[in-house]
Amino acid sequence: MAELVARYPDRFPGFIASVTVADTDAMLEETERAMETLGAVGTQIFTNAGGRPLDLPEFRPFFRKMAEYDRPIWVHPTRSAGFADYASEDRSKYEIWWAFGWPYETSTFMARMVFSKIFDELPNLKIITHHGGGMVPFFEGRVGPGLDQLGSRTSGEDYKQLLAELKHRPIDYFRLFIADTATFGSSPATECTLAFFGEDRVVFASDAPFDPEKGPMYIRETIKVIDGLDISDAARRKLYYGNAVRLLGLSN
Amino acid sequence: MAELVARYPDRFPGFIASVTVADTDAMLEETERAMETLGAVGTQIFTNAGGRPLDLPEFRPFFRKMAEYDRPIWVHPTRSAGFADYASEDRSKYEIWWAFGWPYETSTFMARMVFSKIFDELPNLKIITHHGGGMVPFFEGRVGPGLDQLGSRTSGEDYKQLLAELKHRPIDYFRLFIADTATFGSSPATECTLAFFGEDRVVFASDAPFDPEKGPMYIRETIKVIDGLDISDAARRKLYYGNAVRLLGLSN
Repeated sequence: MAELVARYPDRFPGFIASVTVADTDAMLEETERAMETLGAVGTQIFTNAGGRPLDLPEFRPFFRKMAEYDRPIWVHPTRSAGFADYASEDRSKYEIWWAFGWPYETSTFMARMVFSKIFDELPNLKIITHHGGGMVPFFEGRVGPGLDQLGSRTSGEDYKQLLAELKHRPIDYFRLFIADTATFGSSPATECTLAFFGEDRVVFASDAPFDPEKGPMYIRETIKVIDGLDISDAARRKLYYGNAVRLLGLSN
Repeated sequence: MAELVARYPDRFPGFIASVTVADTDAMLEETERAMETLGAVGTQIFTNAGGRPLDLPEFRPFFRKMAEYDRPIWVHPTRSAGFADYASEDRSKYEIWWAFGWPYETSTFMARMVFSKIFDELPNLKIITHHGGGMVPFFEGRVGPGLDQLGSRTSGEDYKQLLAELKHRPIDYFRLFIADTATFGSSPATECTLAFFGEDRVVFASDAPFDPEKGPMYIRETIKVIDGLDISDAARRKLYYGNAVRLLGLSN
């Protein structure tokens, strides 16, 4: 990818590096190599490490490093049919594991990051969440007044104390994530995403080639959705490229 | 509740009966008693039976019975902290189990109903889903072109055959559910719900008293959201009571 960017700079203005979450030493090493030696403008990770959450202390150096670079981390949900939806079963049926399970993974990742206080430690951390920001924009009421009451449904954990230690309301941290427009051509979902994160924190993505046409459909439909949004042309330009140019530190 | 309705008909035009999913004989018996003897206008169940999905054959008589009565079933999500979000853990942290887990439960319930072909058997079945219809309205693109490709990510199950057996696209069945307006005062979420289910399949609900004010807030904010929707007054009346009057068979 570094070679492609060097050879065709007009077509490929930058690349991001996929780094493993399976081995935190290798993760850090590859992040440094990609960002410092190869010139990557961001990294991509998955939402869990073989079933372990990414708010564990061993992943913190990676997030610190990316905050230091001031470059974004793309986070892709991961879950397989082996994650059952019912206690009585051992597999997820009907591909529910990706249809709803992946956005659930994204949302859980976001919640774990928020309550691990990562944004208090790293206020400029830039995390790009997939599929319009998971379930968060639609369930802003649960993230808002809902999680303001964290602890009221729990015994045995001092979540009231945790809330008191956070500098802001939980929802304010959820708004610090960035979301993409990969909602598979849904105008209401894209409007919901934009309303939650605001025009400076939404970036274009289409989820190509995972559509029934194997590529062109989600690109075409996502462009149609964005062109149809009732927003200013300046805001539309931010979604299409302005926010990406700024976040990735590219020249316009 | 039957007594209250009899005593104060102007204030309580009808009641619905909560029926157990733990014992399917008792479930059916109580449904018959409530609907036929006590005059209930609907029933309420939870999304799983101690961890078992409701598309199992033993629950089908209940759904047949409610379709026969032509009265709705309210479905409330259920999940506790004991349902872990990560394979490496045994509990869900930070109350993610209700914040995101409940809408996930609702969505999974809906998918299981759809793919069990219940709507082909019982086309007039009326199921009212909570919290704006779970994740379905926001993820209409996953439910739509996504699930049109059911089977492409699975081996060992003949989902292509299942798709061929269904009379309609998966998304068309998801649109047969009814959703409530309990989005905790979120305008974008309510608009998303309305866009997906349409003005004839959305009914008022507030989720009172589970707000920080312990009651009035979600009622007040939900009314504010519905009053602010860019829809006709006729549509607004449907949301507030018209659809409920029709679904419950009440006189207006």
